[in-house]
Amino acid sequence: MRLAVIGAGAVGRSVVELAGEHGHEVVAVADSSTAVVADGTGGSGGEAVGVDPDAVVARKAERGIVGDDDPADALAADYDVLVEATPTTLGDAEPGFSHVTTALERDRHAVLANKGPVAERYGDLRAAVGDSDGEIRFEATVGGAIPAVSTVEDIEPGHVTAVRGVLNGTANFILTRMAAEGLDYDHVLAEAQDLGVAEADPSFDVDGTDAALKCVILANVLSFGAVDDPADAREFTLEDADVSGIRDVPGSALRLAAEDGRTVRLIGEATGETVRVAPRLVPENGTLAVSGTQNIVQIETSHAGRLNISGRGAGGPETASAVLGDVGRLE
Amino acid sequence: MRLAVIGAGAVGRSVVELAGEHGHEVVAVADSSTAVVADGTGGSGGEAVGVDPDAVVARKAERGIVGDDDPADALAADYDVLVEATPTTLGDAEPGFSHVTTALERDRHAVLANKGPVAERYGDLRAAVGDSDGEIRFEATVGGAIPAVSTVEDIEPGHVTAVRGVLNGTANFILTRMAAEGLDYDHVLAEAQDLGVAEADPSFDVDGTDAALKCVILANVLSFGAVDDPADAREFTLEDADVSGIRDVPGSALRLAAEDGRTVRLIGEATGETVRVAPRLVPENGTLAVSGTQNIVQIETSHAGRLNISGRGAGGPETASAVLGDVGRLE
Repeated sequence: MRLAVIGAGAVGRSVVELAGEHGHEVVAVADSSTAVVADGTGGSGGEAVGVDPDAVVARKAERGIVGDDDPADALAADYDVLVEATPTTLGDAEPGFSHVTTALERDRHAVLANKGPVAERYGDLRAAVGDSDGEIRFEATVGGAIPAVSTVEDIEPGHVTAVRGVLNGTANFILTRMAAEGLDYDHVLAEAQDLGVAEADPSFDVDGTDAALKCVILANVLSFGAVDDPADAREFTLEDADVSGIRDVPGSALRLAAEDGRTVRLIGEATGETVRVAPRLVPENGTLAVSGTQNIVQIETSHAGRLNISGRGAGGPETASAVLGDVGRLE
Repeated sequence: MRLAVIGAGAVGRSVVELAGEHGHEVVAVADSSTAVVADGTGGSGGEAVGVDPDAVVARKAERGIVGDDDPADALAADYDVLVEATPTTLGDAEPGFSHVTTALERDRHAVLANKGPVAERYGDLRAAVGDSDGEIRFEATVGGAIPAVSTVEDIEPGHVTAVRGVLNGTANFILTRMAAEGLDYDHVLAEAQDLGVAEADPSFDVDGTDAALKCVILANVLSFGAVDDPADAREFTLEDADVSGIRDVPGSALRLAAEDGRTVRLIGEATGETVRVAPRLVPENGTLAVSGTQNIVQIETSHAGRLNISGRGAGGPETASAVLGDVGRLE
């Protein structure tokens, strides 16, 4: 498949670097202000070749640009799948939302790593897909390398009663370290920032917003998947989520929990009706008590009991792996 | 999709009962000597209807037959997908293998819950698929409700370096109980048989054969998935597996392990080159130490670290869920 990769952050760059290994060709890359578009010629056998992945990544690293073209040229290029990997934005979810609808209006596919459109405008996305020969997939928006969305899809959303889990590695790392070392939140946050596990402004992660967006996405999948007509589905956005983060979890709570064989994790849960994110007590050797930056997704099913899937929830190559898995499913 | 369900044991009956909930229609059911085939008429709107699932299951329970037709009639029926759910047989894997090739020769799809053809004749199956417009899927052959095969498929076999896990619930139940109660193998086996968790002849499970067949299937998926031409792939059969079961694990080994924070589990592992099943020491609170009849599949990937998927590895509804997930992927 020919890919147009929109977004040249960690995920976009990893997709550009790994696409060839999966048998795909990158024909265009765009960041917020520049682009590079393959000119459709040049292979030794006369076949069309894509952009040079290593050159593009190097150019971005050294000069901060991907090429001399304009992002609009990337959106207009001859691709099979548009990969939307620009930063998550809320509310109108732009410019990511329009990147996706541009692809669909051209009857091409879109694969999202960007949570914004899927969490905040799911109804509009489904309507745009309905009018298009193209499809959308968004495994990379929930749980990185963990196949959460496709597993729910294969079991069929109507047969999934709930999905819950640890969906943010930054918050989980902090809570794990607080429990392991008996340290307070502020101390461990500083450590996490030094390690690059937490951002300079960590609120998106520690306030539970990132986990909530992922749960909103899962709630939309469950809700829309349970009905035949999208018009009958209840649509969720971030506003529907009941969210508490980890800033106010004191070290004393973790010590108390440990005396009872428990610990604290930031748990998100989605059903077809509710979305909740909050710190919760869990058994310290139990399935939900994953450590460090690991994520876990727990799927409750009607006929097959509970499934647990754990793994790396974030990272360039991990998320790119989910994006390329989606591209493979579109072939 | 219209299904012909071949095999009326626990799995076949569950597929018959649950197909309607997934929007599919059962047009034929066969056991080893009888069949029922829908006659293609009769809906209130004049549309063709399938067999009556409840009536078929009841008939099998009360009279030991599914209908008055012949199994050959089921194989000749007008279906989209043949579900192969007859008992696993080794070597030539008949009659299951021929049921699948009959479907493929008619350019229809086959979904297997029967491990025999996939473990023992994978090369022949792939050749038959190559000559057909139909495809095969076999999620239900490995790990019941756990989406092991489709997850490896989505990551792409060339990017999976190994798959390992606890793949037999009977053996795992026995080891779990031996560790928990300090009892010997023979005592716990008797308990397992009373509970219906172990068969009267438990050898298939406790000798590791069942786990080995599942690992052989995974090795075939990894091996054939890593090359473009099936003729270049190394084919695995049960004979290639290095297998040790749990009959000789003494209670003392478990007590010794516990003193070191470990326990014993029957672990199967497949790479593109080897297949091994043996009892192994694992951390007692670690990921591989699932309890009771639970299964776990651990997938090592090139770019996305390790994925762990745990859940119910067996059971009629659980395995039927995997079969119907495969049917959904063929639509």
